[in-house]
Amino acid sequence: MINAKLYLLPNTISEGEWQYVIPVGVKERSLPIRHFIVENIRTARRYLRKIGFNTNFEEVEFYELNKHTLEQDIPQFVKPLKEGFDMAIISESGLPCVADPGNHVVQLAQQQGIIVVPLVGPSSLMMALMASGFNGQNFAFVGYLPIDNAQKLKTLKQLENRIYSENQTQIFIEAPYRNQKLMEFIIKNAQASTKLCIARDISGPKEKILSKSILEWRKVKINIQKQNTVFLLYK
Amino acid sequence: MINAKLYLLPNTISEGEWQYVIPVGVKERSLPIRHFIVENIRTARRYLRKIGFNTNFEEVEFYELNKHTLEQDIPQFVKPLKEGFDMAIISESGLPCVADPGNHVVQLAQQQGIIVVPLVGPSSLMMALMASGFNGQNFAFVGYLPIDNAQKLKTLKQLENRIYSENQTQIFIEAPYRNQKLMEFIIKNAQASTKLCIARDISGPKEKILSKSILEWRKVKINIQKQNTVFLLYK
Repeated sequence: MINAKLYLLPNTISEGEWQYVIPVGVKERSLPIRHFIVENIRTARRYLRKIGFNTNFEEVEFYELNKHTLEQDIPQFVKPLKEGFDMAIISESGLPCVADPGNHVVQLAQQQGIIVVPLVGPSSLMMALMASGFNGQNFAFVGYLPIDNAQKLKTLKQLENRIYSENQTQIFIEAPYRNQKLMEFIIKNAQASTKLCIARDISGPKEKILSKSILEWRKVKINIQKQNTVFLLYK
Repeated sequence: MINAKLYLLPNTISEGEWQYVIPVGVKERSLPIRHFIVENIRTARRYLRKIGFNTNFEEVEFYELNKHTLEQDIPQFVKPLKEGFDMAIISESGLPCVADPGNHVVQLAQQQGIIVVPLVGPSSLMMALMASGFNGQNFAFVGYLPIDNAQKLKTLKQLENRIYSENQTQIFIEAPYRNQKLMEFIIKNAQASTKLCIARDISGPKEKILSKSILEWRKVKINIQKQNTVFLLYK
């Protein structure tokens, strides 16, 4: 019987103040923890200091888990839990274990009967969905669209098909330096009546969330290049 | 040009302390607001008092928006915004405008060029997904499954098909008094290798989030009747 808990500690997603996106109770839960699983030690330390984690880092153990981590090394990450120490996973941005390798550790924890405790923080996907005005009772997040243009067009048509046949909002993201190109691709190739929501820099100083039909977007200009953006399509 | 903002103010989702799920900065943003769109005035007032909103309610206007509201009455909800007053939408539980009629107001606000600002709070869907260990890079929330058993079985098979053919985690909910029956239905009818995550009372005192294969669930008992639960399926 393992009593130690695996906390999932969200990170900020923009340059804004952390107090707007992380509850005080969440910060307090992180204070007694001495074992963290993080994507990048340097930025995780900076985040912990920002929210008021004052323990000397010499008393803290960090385990780096990212795309360079070998699958066979993952079981060692849950060892402190088995020894009775609470742990927390922190991602580089937003909710951990949603779009990062943290979910492999959670999977293992679930298999071994370890209690997993998700904490509250900013989700750019949900914040974009709330502010889009699109259907929140049926939606899908599909990650990235294919890079190849023919494949991208095919995927766009499949997503539009799901919007019209299933009333399902379709959500996706792109590498920031390709954002502008993707937006132009969608405005050019989606149906005129389809609605596109562009949610830029959520919770940050340049936050802008706009929902318009493709027809309307063809008359409007907005710059999203190199800025974190969530794309949403609906009818 | 309208400068007033429409804030989307999340609510708590369980009996736990609000400080664990609502950031202080979010509470502070609600303090100057005098015009609220809510599902139920009585519970919205109680929530505002809980987080420290101390203004006399005689100085505050509440607009009730719920399933009884007529569509033709919705345009009047954004009137204070046009007169320059900030407004906030509060739902009965969790994130507003995701699974409640608030999204009709947001839609209208978007059409009229009003700035919509989503705030951070608890999302039972995302917290369940984080703690499930399932795929967070591709997932769908499909709302409720059909009530009729033949239809429900058909939908379950479609969801399983999407899990195996698209690597897409499938998320759904049920009316709490039907939770136990739905869980038993899934355990009986899904493929033995499919994984089911049951996320009960997220952020509350009875929180329990368990991911197991259907084969394992057939040997385990858990009571979720009349408790808020999120269901997730993956492979």
